[in-house]
Amino acid sequence: MRPNKVKALWRENRPVTVGWMGTADPYVAETLAHAGFDAIVLDMQHGMAIGPDRAALCFQAISTTDTVPFVRVPWNDPALIQYVLDAGAYGVIVPLVMTVEDARRAAGACRYPPLGYRSVGPNRARLYGGADYVQQANEEIACLVMIEHIAAVERVEEIAQVPGIDGFFIGPADLALSLGLPPGADISEPRHVAACQRVLAAARSRGLVAGIACSGPEEARRRIAEGFNFNPIGSDIGFIAGGAQRAIRLFQTGAA
Amino acid sequence: MRPNKVKALWRENRPVTVGWMGTADPYVAETLAHAGFDAIVLDMQHGMAIGPDRAALCFQAISTTDTVPFVRVPWNDPALIQYVLDAGAYGVIVPLVMTVEDARRAAGACRYPPLGYRSVGPNRARLYGGADYVQQANEEIACLVMIEHIAAVERVEEIAQVPGIDGFFIGPADLALSLGLPPGADISEPRHVAACQRVLAAARSRGLVAGIACSGPEEARRRIAEGFNFNPIGSDIGFIAGGAQRAIRLFQTGAA
Amino acid sequence: MRPNKVKALWRENRPVTVGWMGTADPYVAETLAHAGFDAIVLDMQHGMAIGPDRAALCFQAISTTDTVPFVRVPWNDPALIQYVLDAGAYGVIVPLVMTVEDARRAAGACRYPPLGYRSVGPNRARLYGGADYVQQANEEIACLVMIEHIAAVERVEEIAQVPGIDGFFIGPADLALSLGLPPGADISEPRHVAACQRVLAAARSRGLVAGIACSGPEEARRRIAEGFNFNPIGSDIGFIAGGAQRAIRLFQTGAA
Amino acid sequence: MRPNKVKALWRENRPVTVGWMGTADPYVAETLAHAGFDAIVLDMQHGMAIGPDRAALCFQAISTTDTVPFVRVPWNDPALIQYVLDAGAYGVIVPLVMTVEDARRAAGACRYPPLGYRSVGPNRARLYGGADYVQQANEEIACLVMIEHIAAVERVEEIAQVPGIDGFFIGPADLALSLGLPPGADISEPRHVAACQRVLAAARSRGLVAGIACSGPEEARRRIAEGFNFNPIGSDIGFIAGGAQRAIRLFQTGAA
Amino acid sequence: MRPNKVKALWRENRPVTVGWMGTADPYVAETLAHAGFDAIVLDMQHGMAIGPDRAALCFQAISTTDTVPFVRVPWNDPALIQYVLDAGAYGVIVPLVMTVEDARRAAGACRYPPLGYRSVGPNRARLYGGADYVQQANEEIACLVMIEHIAAVERVEEIAQVPGIDGFFIGPADLALSLGLPPGADISEPRHVAACQRVLAAARSRGLVAGIACSGPEEARRRIAEGFNFNPIGSDIGFIAGGAQRAIRLFQTGAA
Amino acid sequence: MRPNKVKALWRENRPVTVGWMGTADPYVAETLAHAGFDAIVLDMQHGMAIGPDRAALCFQAISTTDTVPFVRVPWNDPALIQYVLDAGAYGVIVPLVMTVEDARRAAGACRYPPLGYRSVGPNRARLYGGADYVQQANEEIACLVMIEHIAAVERVEEIAQVPGIDGFFIGPADLALSLGLPPGADISEPRHVAACQRVLAAARSRGLVAGIACSGPEEARRRIAEGFNFNPIGSDIGFIAGGAQRAIRLFQTGAA
Repeated sequence: MRPNKVKALWRENRPVTVGWMGTADPYVAETLAHAGFDAIVLDMQHGMAIGPDRAALCFQAISTTDTVPFVRVPWNDPALIQYVLDAGAYGVIVPLVMTVEDARRAAGACRYPPLGYRSVGPNRARLYGGADYVQQANEEIACLVMIEHIAAVERVEEIAQVPGIDGFFIGPADLALSLGLPPGADISEPRHVAACQRVLAAARSRGLVAGIACSGPEEARRRIAEGFNFNPIGSDIGFIAGGAQRAIRLFQTGAA
Repeated sequence: MRPNKVKALWRENRPVTVGWMGTADPYVAETLAHAGFDAIVLDMQHGMAIGPDRAALCFQAISTTDTVPFVRVPWNDPALIQYVLDAGAYGVIVPLVMTVEDARRAAGACRYPPLGYRSVGPNRARLYGGADYVQQANEEIACLVMIEHIAAVERVEEIAQVPGIDGFFIGPADLALSLGLPPGADISEPRHVAACQRVLAAARSRGLVAGIACSGPEEARRRIAEGFNFNPIGSDIGFIAGGAQRAIRLFQTGAA
Repeated sequence: MRPNKVKALWRENRPVTVGWMGTADPYVAETLAHAGFDAIVLDMQHGMAIGPDRAALCFQAISTTDTVPFVRVPWNDPALIQYVLDAGAYGVIVPLVMTVEDARRAAGACRYPPLGYRSVGPNRARLYGGADYVQQANEEIACLVMIEHIAAVERVEEIAQVPGIDGFFIGPADLALSLGLPPGADISEPRHVAACQRVLAAARSRGLVAGIACSGPEEARRRIAEGFNFNPIGSDIGFIAGGAQRAIRLFQTGAA
Repeated sequence: MRPNKVKALWRENRPVTVGWMGTADPYVAETLAHAGFDAIVLDMQHGMAIGPDRAALCFQAISTTDTVPFVRVPWNDPALIQYVLDAGAYGVIVPLVMTVEDARRAAGACRYPPLGYRSVGPNRARLYGGADYVQQANEEIACLVMIEHIAAVERVEEIAQVPGIDGFFIGPADLALSLGLPPGADISEPRHVAACQRVLAAARSRGLVAGIACSGPEEARRRIAEGFNFNPIGSDIGFIAGGAQRAIRLFQTGAA
Repeated sequence: MRPNKVKALWRENRPVTVGWMGTADPYVAETLAHAGFDAIVLDMQHGMAIGPDRAALCFQAISTTDTVPFVRVPWNDPALIQYVLDAGAYGVIVPLVMTVEDARRAAGACRYPPLGYRSVGPNRARLYGGADYVQQANEEIACLVMIEHIAAVERVEEIAQVPGIDGFFIGPADLALSLGLPPGADISEPRHVAACQRVLAAARSRGLVAGIACSGPEEARRRIAEGFNFNPIGSDIGFIAGGAQRAIRLFQTGAA
Repeated sequence: MRPNKVKALWRENRPVTVGWMGTADPYVAETLAHAGFDAIVLDMQHGMAIGPDRAALCFQAISTTDTVPFVRVPWNDPALIQYVLDAGAYGVIVPLVMTVEDARRAAGACRYPPLGYRSVGPNRARLYGGADYVQQANEEIACLVMIEHIAAVERVEEIAQVPGIDGFFIGPADLALSLGLPPGADISEPRHVAACQRVLAAARSRGLVAGIACSGPEEARRRIAEGFNFNPIGSDIGFIAGGAQRAIRLFQTGAA
C-alpha cells in the first residue's frame, strides 16, 4: 500500500506542511497540491458546496502529486467517513468529539475489524493505495479527532486512550465559545492556552499527535515549536481573499 | 437597464479595478466579487474547465454584488458570445482579432440589429439587466477586441474604426511571440513597447479604451498612468499559487 | 449583518409571500426570486436531486435579489443544518419534530453557543450576511420546526417553549396520515382542523409564528386571515406541471 | 429504429403539441415530458446554462416517456449538431439560416452520406433509437432550419429545395428586427405577416413543414389553422415566471 | 402504479438478473440497463462519487428501460432512504443491519404510515410510478436489509419477523471479517457457509427473499440453485477493469 | 517538461497500447488508466456528454498514473484544441481532415508560433507538464489528423507534408461510407484495404505514424504487424456492454 507520508513525518518528528481547502474545485486542489504541501485538508464541514461528488474529484486532483489528501468530515458520521476513505482520503478529521464514546465512534469508522467497524469495499482507495489496501489501511489511514469544547478537554486524557486515533486537532474558535470567549484563532487568554496545552500533553503522553487550526504560517511555525504538528498555514479562500485585497490596495493606493 | 459600471468609469476617466478568474468555481467568483473589484473577467479562453454550464453559475455569483461580470470568450465565435451575453455577461473580450473583418464579426455578435447581428432571446440577461434589456443592451454591453499579434497592430487604426467596439485589450505574451520575443508580461523590448503604445494611441484617437494583461498591481497602476484602463491586477489561481508558496516559505523558513 | 426580511415582516405582522422550490436549478431559483417572493424555500427533503453542491448554487442565485433563502432540510440533522447555514441560508425548516428533545436538537443546531451548539465557521454566510455574521446570526436566522404528527401536536405547547425556535410549520399530509386520514392539503376534517388550530394557538401564545403547507394562493391567503404567516403559495414544479397542462388543454381544445 | 412520432404526425397532418425548455434541469425535462407534449425543444441557443453535459441528461429524462426530444442548437455548427444527434436528439432546429449554402450545411450535418456528411458513431442514439439507427437515421431525424431574417425569406423558395431539410421554423422576433420592427411574437404588421406566409407557402409547395415561435397556446392553435405545425405553446421558464406572478397576485390581492 | 418487476419475479419464483453500479455516470447506467438486467443496484455505499444529485440522474437513465432501479444506501439512514425513494428508486438495500431495531428503522423508512414512518412527498417517484404512488408504494417498493455480521446472523430469525422487509442481502466480505476470516466472495469456509444457509433458511421460512453479493455469474447461478434470488452478477467497474485487462493481455501477448 | 511517453514509444518503434473512453466519468478514467494503457483517448466527438468541464476532470484522473491523456476533439476547431491542450491533454486527434489546408489548421492549433498559432496561456498544462511547458510543448504534444474520406486519402501524400502533424488516424467507418460501403471496422473490401495501406505508406515515407480505429485487440495486434501504431483496443462503454452481455448469458444459460 502507498505509505502515508504524513504518518511517516510524524514518526520521524518532522514538521508537516498543511494546507486547507474550502472550495470544491479540482483545479484549485491541483494548484494547491503543486505548491508543495505535505497534506491538504478538504473541509467538508465549513467549506462551501463540498458534497460527496466533488470531494472525490478533489482527491483525484490531489493524487496527481504526492500530497496526502485529508478530509474534515462535517460530522462524526460513519457513513461519510466510510465514503471519503473508500474514495481515497488518507486522513480524516472528525469534528465535535466530546466523549470517549464519540472518539470510539470516529476511530471505529476509520478501521476495519477487528479494530473497528469499517465495511469492506474500497473503490478508488484500492486504485490509489494499492492492491493490499484492505490489509494495510488500518495502519496507514490517519484519524484525528477534534477537541473543540472545554468539556472535551476535561476528558482528553481518557479520549487519548481510545485505540485507533492518531491524535487531536484543536478547533480554537469553538473551544473559545465553550469558554465564554469570543471565537478566533491564536488566542492568548490563559484558560484557552491551558486547554490547548492540556490537549498537547495528553497527546504526547500517549505517543499521539496534536494539531491546531492556525491564523497563518507564523502561528503554525510557533505551534511546531510548542509541539503541535498538524497546523494548517492557509486556505484557498484565504489566499484568494487576502491576495485580492492586497492587490486592490496596491493598485488603488500604490502601497501595500 | 442596470447601467454598466465599467463603462461609466471609462466615461468619467476613472480607473477600473479588474480581477481575473481562471477557475469555474462560483464560490471563488463570489469571494473575488466581495473583494471589491469593479469588474471580474471570467477567462473561458485560458481558464480551466469553464464550459457554458459553470460560466453561468459564476455570473450569478458575481451578480450578488455590483461587480460587473466580463468574459474572455475562447474564440471569436458568435455562438459563444451570444451565449455569455444572454446569460448576463456585461462585457466581452474577444481574442485573436487580426483584421477589420474579425473586429466586425466580434462587434456584430455583441450588438442587436441594425448595429450587429445578435439574435434576440436574452434569458438571465433580462433578469439581471432589466425588462428594457433588448432596447438598451447595445449601449451598455462592453466589447473589447484583443490585439495580440504584430500584424493586428499594423492595422489597429483601421480596426479602431469598426463600429460597436469599445476598445482594445492587449495580450502581451502572444504579441511577443509574433515579434519573435519570448512570451511574458510587462515586456520592455522597444518593438513591443512601441506596439503597445500604437494600440493605445489608436484607441484614444477614436475615444476608445485600451487595456493590457498585466504582471500584477504595480504594472497595472503604471499602465493607468500611461492611459490604459482595463488592466487586470491578479487572478484567483495566481492568488492561490502565490499565497500558498509564500505561506509555505514562511512556515518552513520563518522568512518571507 | 444583513437583516432577515422575513423576521422583520413577522415582527410587523405583515404577510410573508413564500415560494417553494423542488428542483436544484439555479436559473429556476433566480427566476423565482425575481418574481417577487419574500422568501423561497429550497426543499431538500422532498425536492429532487438537491444535494449540498447545487443547494449552495441556488442560494447564490437567490442572493442576486433581496428574496430570503430558506431551506427545508431532509432530516433533523445538525450536520446538514450547519451546512446550509454556513452556505448562506437565512431560514431553516426542520421536518419530523416529534418531541421537545427533537426541537432542542433542531434549535441548537441553528444557534451559536451559549444558545446552541452550532460550530463557528461561516463561509458564504459571511459574504452574504456581513462581517458581523457570527455576532448577529442567532438573532437573524429563522428556525421553524415541522409539526406533522398528531403526537407532536399533543406536545406542541411544550415544544413552543424550547428556546431558539421561531415557530412551527405544519405538514398537513403527514399529519393527516398520523390521524388515519388520506394525505393532502387544505383538509377540512375536524380533527385535522383542530390540530392545526392548536398548533397556531401554541405558537401565538409564545409570540411565535405558525405556517402551513398550502394547496395554492387561495388557501395561503385564507391561512393569513387565520393567523398563519408562512404559507407557501406555489412551487417551481407545480408551476411547470400546471402551466404545461393548461397550455396543452388550451392548444388542443381551445378552452382552458 | 424507434420511429419519430413527430414526423409521423406531420405525415398524417395532425397537430404537434410542442413544449420549450430553457433550463438544463433533467427533473424539469421529465416533468414537462410527463405533461404530454409530443415534442420538447431543448433550447441550447437562448436557454441558460445548457452545455453538452446537461443537454444529454435532459434527453435521458425525456426518453423516460414517448415525448420526442428536439434541440435548438446555438449555431449552424456541425460539431454541435453531430453531438446532439449522437446523444439521442430526434430533431434539430438550426438558427440563422440565411442562404441555400447555410441550409446545405445544416441539412448535411444531420444526414449520413451520401445525403450528408454526418460522421458515424452514434452512442446514446443507438440505445435510444435501436440497433439499426445508422441505417434509418436519415429518415427519422427531423431537421428544421430557422428563417429569421427578411433576406432569408427572400430566398426561401430556393432554400426549400435543399435536400435533407424537413421544414422551416420562423423566429418572429429576429425577423421583425430585420424588418426594422420591434421584436416580439404574434406580430400583425403586414410585412411581417407576408413574410411568414411566404415561408409557409414555400414549405407547403415542397411538402415541407413550417413552424413558428408563438406567444402561447392561443396563437399556436391559430397557427395550426393557418397551416403551421411546429408551434411551441410554452416554456418551463415561462410557466414558472407566469405561474409565480399569478400566484403572488392572487395571494396578495385576492384576485387573479 | 407501475408494478415492481423484481417483486413479480420473486413471487413467481423466477430468477432475477441483477447488475451492480459503482460509478455515478448516467450514460453508464443507461448502457447497463439496455444490456437486459432485471434490476440495477446503484451502490451509494461503496460506489464512488454517488451523491444525491447524480443518483437521481442515474434513476432517470435506468427508467428509459424497464430495468428496475435499486439502491444500496450508504447507511441505515432514513433521510437518504426517503430521498432515493422520492427520486424513484423501487428497491432499497440497507447495510449493516445488526438487530431487530435496525431492521425496524430500515423497514419503517421505506413504508408510509401506518406501516412505517416515511414522509409523504414523492416527486419523481410519482412521475415514474404513477398518480397512485402513495397508495401503492408500500406494496411495490422492495426493502432488503443486509446481514453482514455474525451477530446479525445469530438473530436473523427474529429480524425476519420485522414487518415491511422483503428479504436479506448477505455481504460476504464483512461477514467474513466478523468471523475472523479474510474478506472475499464465494467463501467456502464452513462457518461462513453455515451462516449464509441460516440466513437463507430464515428468509424462506417467512416467505422472504435472500440474496448475496457474488464473485460473478457462475457463483450467482449456483446461488440461484441454492435458493438465493438477488445475486449481482457483475458491475460497471468490474466490467471495465476486467475487460481492459483482458484486452491489454490479448493485444500484448496474442493470448487471452 | 514531462516527456510524452507515446512519442517516445513511437520513436523507439515499440507498440503503443491505446484505450478509448466514451463516457465523461473521472472514476472510469482512473480505472482505465490503472489497467495499464500507454494512452487513453477521451472521445469528445462520438463520446457522450463530454463537454469541457468533465473532460478536464478526466485528464486529472488519468494524470494520477503515467498513462498519457489524448483527446479526439469533436471538430477541427482551434478553440477546442486550445482548450484541451491548456487543460493538459498531451495528444490531440482531429477528425474530418480533408485537405492540406485542414491539416494546417489542425497542426497550427497544436503549436505555438512560429510553427503554429496556438495562443500562450497553459493553465493545468503547466502543472502537469512542468514550468518549461511553453518552451517544449511543440515537441512533446502529439497531433494526429483523421483520414476518413476517400477524397482525403487521395491527397494523403500532400497532407503528410504539413509541418506539425505527427501522423494519421484512420476512421474506417466514415471512410467506408465515402466509398459507398457499409460502415464498420476491420473491413476487408479491397478498395478500403488499399486506402488504408496508402495512408500508412504516406505516413511512413515521411517518418510519421499511422493508427486506425479497431474492432478489438486482435485486429489492433494485427495492425501493429502491418505497421500501424495507434490502434485502440477497446473502450469503457464497449467493456461495459460486452461484459454485461457475457455475464447475463452466463448467468441465464450457464454457457458463455
